[in-house]
Amino acid sequence: MEFSIGVDIGGTNTDIGLVSCEGKCIARARFSTAAYQDASRYVDDLAIVIKQLLQEAGVTQMVKVGIGAPNSNYYTGCIDSATNLNFKDSVPICQMIRERLNTYAVVTNDANAAAYGEMIYGGAKEMKHFIMVTLGTGIGSGFVIDGQLVYGHDGYAGELGHTTIFPDGRLCSCGRRGCLEQYTAARGIQQTCLELMARAPYSGALTQYDIGDLGCKAIASEAYAGDQIALETFEYTGKLLGIALANAVAFSSPEAIFLMGGLMHAGDILLKPLRRSFEQNLLFVYKDNVQILPSKLPQNDASILGAAALTKLS
Amino acid sequence: MEFSIGVDIGGTNTDIGLVSCEGKCIARARFSTAAYQDASRYVDDLAIVIKQLLQEAGVTQMVKVGIGAPNSNYYTGCIDSATNLNFKDSVPICQMIRERLNTYAVVTNDANAAAYGEMIYGGAKEMKHFIMVTLGTGIGSGFVIDGQLVYGHDGYAGELGHTTIFPDGRLCSCGRRGCLEQYTAARGIQQTCLELMARAPYSGALTQYDIGDLGCKAIASEAYAGDQIALETFEYTGKLLGIALANAVAFSSPEAIFLMGGLMHAGDILLKPLRRSFEQNLLFVYKDNVQILPSKLPQNDASILGAAALTKLS
Repeated sequence: MEFSIGVDIGGTNTDIGLVSCEGKCIARARFSTAAYQDASRYVDDLAIVIKQLLQEAGVTQMVKVGIGAPNSNYYTGCIDSATNLNFKDSVPICQMIRERLNTYAVVTNDANAAAYGEMIYGGAKEMKHFIMVTLGTGIGSGFVIDGQLVYGHDGYAGELGHTTIFPDGRLCSCGRRGCLEQYTAARGIQQTCLELMARAPYSGALTQYDIGDLGCKAIASEAYAGDQIALETFEYTGKLLGIALANAVAFSSPEAIFLMGGLMHAGDILLKPLRRSFEQNLLFVYKDNVQILPSKLPQNDASILGAAALTKLS
Repeated sequence: MEFSIGVDIGGTNTDIGLVSCEGKCIARARFSTAAYQDASRYVDDLAIVIKQLLQEAGVTQMVKVGIGAPNSNYYTGCIDSATNLNFKDSVPICQMIRERLNTYAVVTNDANAAAYGEMIYGGAKEMKHFIMVTLGTGIGSGFVIDGQLVYGHDGYAGELGHTTIFPDGRLCSCGRRGCLEQYTAARGIQQTCLELMARAPYSGALTQYDIGDLGCKAIASEAYAGDQIALETFEYTGKLLGIALANAVAFSSPEAIFLMGGLMHAGDILLKPLRRSFEQNLLFVYKDNVQILPSKLPQNDASILGAAALTKLS
């Protein structure tokens, strides 16, 4: 039986999983990413954890390692000065893993890894053309065309979160203005909610929260309880996401768009206006021909499975 | 020496060219598209014109036929109810050509054909990743990724002109709102100009024109003569195109974007603000890494060469 290792490098933690060829995560480990300032020591310990995981599972041969990491480049095998990691400059993560474990290693960003996961183990097994969109603290995307992930000229293709939804709109942390992410990722939704609260006299349920606690979860919960401003917040978020996804279709004409990530917890309060806006904004040639689907990967293991799926393409 | 036939089907005229393997158009013919209501008669005459062209040039063998046509589908070989052609319903143009000339025929839309032309005969010969954008009465686009034109699931990928630049913006003939084309193609530019004229007291050069004559050519000419409103019109057009092209880069991460079409006559008055806005709006990972280039195809033959280039891929 052939196994692979999936590694999900997050700003806080690193999750490692041993994945079977059918896409089951049969063993897991986690350690702190944030505790390391030095990339070399971090990879030393990552290699040790991988070895332990294999040993405990009774896997005697070394297996391929797939890595999902922010700001990483599939072509170069490097993580390039990711703002939410402590490591500075460029970290040649694949080469460093190869040196320590003498095995094939491959890296891509989280959203691309999620797309591979959906393609190899999830709902896109039979699809040649689809888009994966991750909705969370940011908006990530991976485009699959003719069964191939789109990397483009330099490996950085697929940045839906940093396309402009409003010219001259909200300032984004990337330095641009009006990025989709500033409206439809976690902080953007909070900002929309605050703007709506400020627009007219309002003394509803949302005023009970400290601003720091007024996250998507709280807004969603108040929306389900019937609060008008909370409902409008998700209506507006869904509308803009629907437009952005319709725009994405105009580029690559996919069979489906898969959605995953923390925002999916909001459920119908987000998905209903999103789907309505998507269908409204779809160019006529694509109408009734593109599905919006939740990811079919098990939510807890999605990022590990995505990373492990990367090794299936070599 | 191997030749091919390029056919450019426009709403008014059909242009046919005999193209050498080096990409020279060595003989041309033109006849009226608009004169035909019946697709079958039209293709009868198209076949006759192709035969004559070959005969006059002394080419004794039948050659492959590439066709650029609005609303056409590469996968099905059909022209599907194009609004600016008289033919109703779906016209299986490739099959009809094969029946009459017993040769390979292939069709795609004008912008995709332009992308093939640039790739086979023009400035993208050495490129694997680029975008072709045609700027004229509409905005067309063809995306090339890993040396392949992107058709997507159903053959309709690459509709940059019908991506939303302003949510809830100007109504488009496609039924959507805020399409890029409604701001940056010929009619959109005229509308921008009229809006700017109406915004404040203005009695400059543009007021001398009948509204029907106030096209891009007239506005560009007045901009070069120093008219403020005309200059602002192109400044605004360039700004929006720059944003839209920066968004397109975020999808496919190309080496270059090629521009062609009637709007290119406006020259620096359009290209300078376009390039400025493009660089401003490019996500940092792409900065200084994507060229904006005018097409290198000879302007008069560009669409014939693009159609002929299609036959080189079979």
